[in-house]
Amino acid sequence: MIIMAIIEPKILKGTRDFGPNEAAKRLSVINKIRSVFIKNGYDAIETPAIEYAATILGKYGDEGDKLTYAFKDHGGRHIALRYDLTVPTARFVAANWTSLPMPFKRYQIGPVWRADKPQRGRFREFYQCDIDIIGSTSAMADAEIAKVVNDVFSTLGFNKFLIRINSRRLMNDILEQCKVKKSDRVEVIRQIDKLDKTSLKDVEKELEKTCLDKKQIKELSKIALSEKARYNLSDVPDGESKKEIDRVLSTIKQFGVPDKNITLDLALARGLDYYTGVVYEVIIPDSGLGSVCGGGRYDDLAELFSDKKFPGTGVAFGFDRIMTWLEENKKLDDVELSSKVLVVNFEDTIKENLRTLTELHKANISAEIYIEDAKMQKQLKYADKKQIPWVIVQGSNEIKRKKVILTD
Amino acid sequence: MIIMAIIEPKILKGTRDFGPNEAAKRLSVINKIRSVFIKNGYDAIETPAIEYAATILGKYGDEGDKLTYAFKDHGGRHIALRYDLTVPTARFVAANWTSLPMPFKRYQIGPVWRADKPQRGRFREFYQCDIDIIGSTSAMADAEIAKVVNDVFSTLGFNKFLIRINSRRLMNDILEQCKVKKSDRVEVIRQIDKLDKTSLKDVEKELEKTCLDKKQIKELSKIALSEKARYNLSDVPDGESKKEIDRVLSTIKQFGVPDKNITLDLALARGLDYYTGVVYEVIIPDSGLGSVCGGGRYDDLAELFSDKKFPGTGVAFGFDRIMTWLEENKKLDDVELSSKVLVVNFEDTIKENLRTLTELHKANISAEIYIEDAKMQKQLKYADKKQIPWVIVQGSNEIKRKKVILTD
Repeated sequence: MIIMAIIEPKILKGTRDFGPNEAAKRLSVINKIRSVFIKNGYDAIETPAIEYAATILGKYGDEGDKLTYAFKDHGGRHIALRYDLTVPTARFVAANWTSLPMPFKRYQIGPVWRADKPQRGRFREFYQCDIDIIGSTSAMADAEIAKVVNDVFSTLGFNKFLIRINSRRLMNDILEQCKVKKSDRVEVIRQIDKLDKTSLKDVEKELEKTCLDKKQIKELSKIALSEKARYNLSDVPDGESKKEIDRVLSTIKQFGVPDKNITLDLALARGLDYYTGVVYEVIIPDSGLGSVCGGGRYDDLAELFSDKKFPGTGVAFGFDRIMTWLEENKKLDDVELSSKVLVVNFEDTIKENLRTLTELHKANISAEIYIEDAKMQKQLKYADKKQIPWVIVQGSNEIKRKKVILTD
Repeated sequence: MIIMAIIEPKILKGTRDFGPNEAAKRLSVINKIRSVFIKNGYDAIETPAIEYAATILGKYGDEGDKLTYAFKDHGGRHIALRYDLTVPTARFVAANWTSLPMPFKRYQIGPVWRADKPQRGRFREFYQCDIDIIGSTSAMADAEIAKVVNDVFSTLGFNKFLIRINSRRLMNDILEQCKVKKSDRVEVIRQIDKLDKTSLKDVEKELEKTCLDKKQIKELSKIALSEKARYNLSDVPDGESKKEIDRVLSTIKQFGVPDKNITLDLALARGLDYYTGVVYEVIIPDSGLGSVCGGGRYDDLAELFSDKKFPGTGVAFGFDRIMTWLEENKKLDDVELSSKVLVVNFEDTIKENLRTLTELHKANISAEIYIEDAKMQKQLKYADKKQIPWVIVQGSNEIKRKKVILTD
């Protein structure tokens, strides 16, 4: 006799199962996002979940190493699970650019993995939805990204959202204007980035403590950080970078994005990331959700993988936060499960029942027959649990009377 | 100065990139398969790609260990990439059955990973598409699986396919009838399974060499293996298992599956797998492809994870082989990429060009503007490479003449 121990049916923290209801909702949102991408001329690519660790880790260095699932396979190869969709795309473009249309507008939707400490809203396996335009330095490309972002959030039913936009180049010119030393800039940007969570006064205090003098701080606030200066270009000295962001903003308008959904934000830094031009971020006012979408322009997307330069601009949508907001705001209540009709199963009229099912399928109606001969009540309970809106009752009585009972 | 070495942009053998054309085709086929599942009342579930190694390896033992990507994470936990979709589903059902409708009809579509030697048509990362009915022992459940299989291959445009069906229980009764010792059955089934690749004579020779005597072989051939006996029940002695498979076959007919698409095959074994009842397999005659779909019934799907019994019946579709056939038979030539219209970009009429784009999007037409101001020829070349069927030319001349040129 073999006695087998039962394995506890648990999953790793930071990973999730999705049952029928949640899976249907997720698919419905993915399909909506995808349809916006396609409508705007973005084509899908797919890359593997597992790649050479050198490919995945190349960009992230030590920090990435800690947060990346990496291991040796049976052949001793160093392998990693993808950490994002940007690096695999860069690798893909470097390998395939001769056969791709340029500029290359691609989207990619799929899971990524982070060996992170799981927290509320932070997962080890989660979906990213990315769009990028690769191979163009034009302001119009940056503007189109904002246009697609606007389309996505409008289509999903967000009644209030704000696309914040800034330019790394402009930020550098402003810091230059304020005579901030190159070596201090990382720290200054780090402090500015806190402006949304704290007050201008506190940021100014921190800046004085760490690297700037009073005069520098005064000028920086006047040009970019004060409530009056932060959301427009009027106090920013003229220059190439100002012209450039101005052109992006006016093109976004020409793309039909309503003023209420977009704002320049001179204090937007997007962390210490590798962006070199425009940066974007989307927030949902009063939601407490933080950023639900973010991205920017980089001069050379594929520098790790190619001598050729591939300028790129794009964003990643935070699928889980988007799902959270849609759930909480009851935008997903009408997502339907598979079956619209349950044909009740009667042993003596099974032929007729199956014929009815065939007719429903021919009419392209999602329908099923209860898969066992069981008591009516059990079958109705099943319909209830599966949220099947219609039930067809066609027993011998109904057939005698040439009737079918359709009930909701 | 930092000199960075270029990382070669290559991927692991047995994994694949899919560019715009291939990705669009794959998505179109997945959507068709999914629509058939939904039409027949199957709901999606999603489970994580990474699970505790004990969960993934439980069933496969040593063989699985070799073929599974397993590793320790930073916290020392034993983790594995899922090897199939059946084990995670069993784990999911064991953990969630109280909140699921029963019988539970679920589908799952997603990637699985095998640390296998890559060969033509054998990958390390590939998609599976599964349906299962869990929690029912009825013949109708088995029959419905065959019905959905028939729907999938019909919907995808396979003009010729054959669903082969057999019963493990019937096979055991036949071996009993031929007085094959229990200890010899695995070997006998292994030999029978070769019947498609070799002749009956060779199989008989092998059986005589290994474990059966002439009389046993003669009887086995008469009942089940000869051309005359193999595809019907007429020479099989009466019994419960014969009644059962007969009921499944007649119910499949009642479900509307055409006779030409289905056959009993008493020599079908489906390897040495864990099936306990009906087994199914789909072949495409004259395709040289081997099995494109297979599965069967198991008495207890979740025995590793629960004391409760969950009988299940289902199949997995071989997505890659299906794609190969559809590609080779030109069934995917009409799959479209994203954009239907390219609006040509002219610097002096950019406002009008963008207004036209907005109108197209309002009419729900997939369209894009060329994202840079470039020479007409370059823009048309781009449309060509992206297979965009229509181009709108609206320069200053056209606007003066209040005309737009629409060209294919």
